[in-house]
Amino acid sequence: MYDARISSLQAAVPALQVLTDPTDLAHYGVDWTRRWTPAPLAIALPADVAQVQAVMRWAHAQGVAVVPSGGRTGLSGGAVAANGELVLSLQRMNKVLGFDAVDRLLTVQAGAALETVHEAARTHGLQYPVDFAARGSCTIGGNIATNAGGIRVVRYGNTREWVAGVKLVTGTGELLDLNRGLVKNSSGYDLRHLAVASEGTLGVIVEATLRLAEPAPATRVMLLALPSFDVLMQVFQALRERLGLEAFEFFTDRALHHVVAHGAQPPFDTAYPFYVVAEFASEGEAGEVALLSAFEHCVEQGWVEDGVISHGDTQAAQLWRLREGITESLAPYVPYKNDVSVRVSAMPAFLAETQALLAAEYPQFDVVWFGHIGDGNLHINVLKPEAMANPDFVIECERVTKLLAATLERHGGSISAEHGIGLVKKPYLRSTRSDAEIAVMRGIKAALDPAGILNPGKLFDP
Amino acid sequence: MYDARISSLQAAVPALQVLTDPTDLAHYGVDWTRRWTPAPLAIALPADVAQVQAVMRWAHAQGVAVVPSGGRTGLSGGAVAANGELVLSLQRMNKVLGFDAVDRLLTVQAGAALETVHEAARTHGLQYPVDFAARGSCTIGGNIATNAGGIRVVRYGNTREWVAGVKLVTGTGELLDLNRGLVKNSSGYDLRHLAVASEGTLGVIVEATLRLAEPAPATRVMLLALPSFDVLMQVFQALRERLGLEAFEFFTDRALHHVVAHGAQPPFDTAYPFYVVAEFASEGEAGEVALLSAFEHCVEQGWVEDGVISHGDTQAAQLWRLREGITESLAPYVPYKNDVSVRVSAMPAFLAETQALLAAEYPQFDVVWFGHIGDGNLHINVLKPEAMANPDFVIECERVTKLLAATLERHGGSISAEHGIGLVKKPYLRSTRSDAEIAVMRGIKAALDPAGILNPGKLFDP
Repeated sequence: MYDARISSLQAAVPALQVLTDPTDLAHYGVDWTRRWTPAPLAIALPADVAQVQAVMRWAHAQGVAVVPSGGRTGLSGGAVAANGELVLSLQRMNKVLGFDAVDRLLTVQAGAALETVHEAARTHGLQYPVDFAARGSCTIGGNIATNAGGIRVVRYGNTREWVAGVKLVTGTGELLDLNRGLVKNSSGYDLRHLAVASEGTLGVIVEATLRLAEPAPATRVMLLALPSFDVLMQVFQALRERLGLEAFEFFTDRALHHVVAHGAQPPFDTAYPFYVVAEFASEGEAGEVALLSAFEHCVEQGWVEDGVISHGDTQAAQLWRLREGITESLAPYVPYKNDVSVRVSAMPAFLAETQALLAAEYPQFDVVWFGHIGDGNLHINVLKPEAMANPDFVIECERVTKLLAATLERHGGSISAEHGIGLVKKPYLRSTRSDAEIAVMRGIKAALDPAGILNPGKLFDP
Repeated sequence: MYDARISSLQAAVPALQVLTDPTDLAHYGVDWTRRWTPAPLAIALPADVAQVQAVMRWAHAQGVAVVPSGGRTGLSGGAVAANGELVLSLQRMNKVLGFDAVDRLLTVQAGAALETVHEAARTHGLQYPVDFAARGSCTIGGNIATNAGGIRVVRYGNTREWVAGVKLVTGTGELLDLNRGLVKNSSGYDLRHLAVASEGTLGVIVEATLRLAEPAPATRVMLLALPSFDVLMQVFQALRERLGLEAFEFFTDRALHHVVAHGAQPPFDTAYPFYVVAEFASEGEAGEVALLSAFEHCVEQGWVEDGVISHGDTQAAQLWRLREGITESLAPYVPYKNDVSVRVSAMPAFLAETQALLAAEYPQFDVVWFGHIGDGNLHINVLKPEAMANPDFVIECERVTKLLAATLERHGGSISAEHGIGLVKKPYLRSTRSDAEIAVMRGIKAALDPAGILNPGKLFDP
């Protein structure tokens, strides 16, 4: 496959590693959505920041579209290259660059896996508290580009809260060294926060300086079986008031069904409609007493039908597996994923409306609900029936997502809580952001990427 | 004083309260810098968001410059109107609009005083943890516009961390309802974070939704006398490791001299070169033991020459007064203020260089140092000798600030930690932000304020 642009790139950046093999194009051209047919021009694998800048200067001069690429574990098509783009993979830039004990800052290249960051933090007796199941494959650059959330947001916030500095290469190849790890820096617009959640449309994140936190406290994990959706928020509030919440996750009987079918041990003899996995700081006897008393309160109120409290790390991991194993257990089904959020206070009304909507619109589909309910974040996974063709299934799901987006808009919610907009949610962005906001976003993109070559067509149309 | 533009404004927004009396122009045209001669066109006092939008639509159509205005307690000239601008004061929009117990969110109009926010939070059994001495006069809109820091940043972060939503009226009069209190919302660029620290150049902040925190723990306050600068960071690290730090502030003997001359009680019989006020979470006997052991450790190391630990709120307030009273005690002297920051780890080297620089360049001036050393933030106040004319004094201080800015640049610091850039720091912005960053900032401003009427000349030149 010959393309004059590839020779031009190799002439402009001689030391750059470039892949053009069809297998590589297919591999690097997709993310976890797998809805689009990969068709990149080529794959660039820069070794350092200077090469990233050189690639971007070349792409700007030649008008070649570039897709920045990390672990490609995204769920919104943000890293898809289906239109002859150059994929710029940060795969080789995956090193830990340094740690400062006084500042408690860890500096890493953007291609480092989240797990690499976790390990480096532990080495220094601290923790990087953002965590989710894709930790082994996703990269910190991708985490920042989507402001990844995960299972500890209720306690530690999103990725954004932990980014003390970002190095960003713009659409013209300029290197911006943003905030440089400062705690206090009121010197104009904070472009670091613009880089967070920019989905590769404003620049290529090449390096990050991350805040680390004190190690997590000793914790216990609780699994609760609930009789109805209605009591979910009451359980959340009761536990939040009484215990140091580290995580509060919910899932339905359908979710448990799939995880158990995938090999997990059923937690109770009886099936219940809803489940909560919650984790709490718990130290010493006082912690034990508080935990039991909170649990008993929920039982007495009739909110909880059954429950388990972990004793030891093995049991805690078993309970967590029931929640963390859901995504993996659904993978064989080609799920269509909604990732929505509302204010926590709006959750009961939103849930009731959405349940009614989906029951009416998806009577024929298996719908699996789970999510980070303490952050107002709900994941709705619709499973494709085996006999149905995927394009037909997606059309049907997109029809219903339009209705869901209208419900969200009425409740002041967001069409993307933590996956990003990418290609998948682009048609519904207007349910969450006004025309005026989108116009401002376009203006901001023009300031950082005047040629419009950075991940074009993602987030909004050019 | 007749100006056709005033009649035009009154015709365009009939219900708008407009002041044109010379006393009002002089009052609303300045902030705490008092370096520029106020010369606004008029003062607009909108009663609601619709009036703010109408004023901005009129200003955009007429090409009239607008200075958004809060409590005007700023120290960088960000709210100064010295060039015939229309001052848009949020003074009448000062109400608490609502509180949600589930979300723990407080919604207020932008003109509400910080103290009003504190009181509202307390009413609901929670706290708004950003705090500093101007709490009675400054407004939450101004706090957001400069990302105000203060005395609890080491524990709770800056204003930015507590802003869950902002309503912003742009330079064309569009109302943007940004983030709406959502915990998770990965739907494109986070314009809320762009509004924070925008110093009135991107829009008028009209409403804010603020996160509230659990009430502060019971605390004790410690005053420490230190023999030298060199041990300061060692004391900080030792206390941070051993105790739950809520604040860690430092000041010099010159600062104490002025506070005592202003009426405070001297804490020790002897004078020492440096002092620290630190506040710690301290509950029960275990807290007492940890506190004493940390104190003894510092004494044993030879880092601390004398110390007091508060018993009761009255003594805690007395110790705090020694730090919080500094700014007030310096007010009669017309101080020139530097508000700089570096990474905490860079502080020792930066301090040493800066001390040498200022001793060489300011041999004739009284230089008072204090600051939030746990955040890497140093306040340097140079006092004008009585016999010196203010313009000569400012010229001399600006000459030395250029040298200080060069030192900061070498250490990766910021020329404005928490006061903002405004007019005062504008000549030094390039020490902290690159030309490429400033070019991006200009592009962003054009996207939100295409006519360039919002606080023109602040932050950077048009």
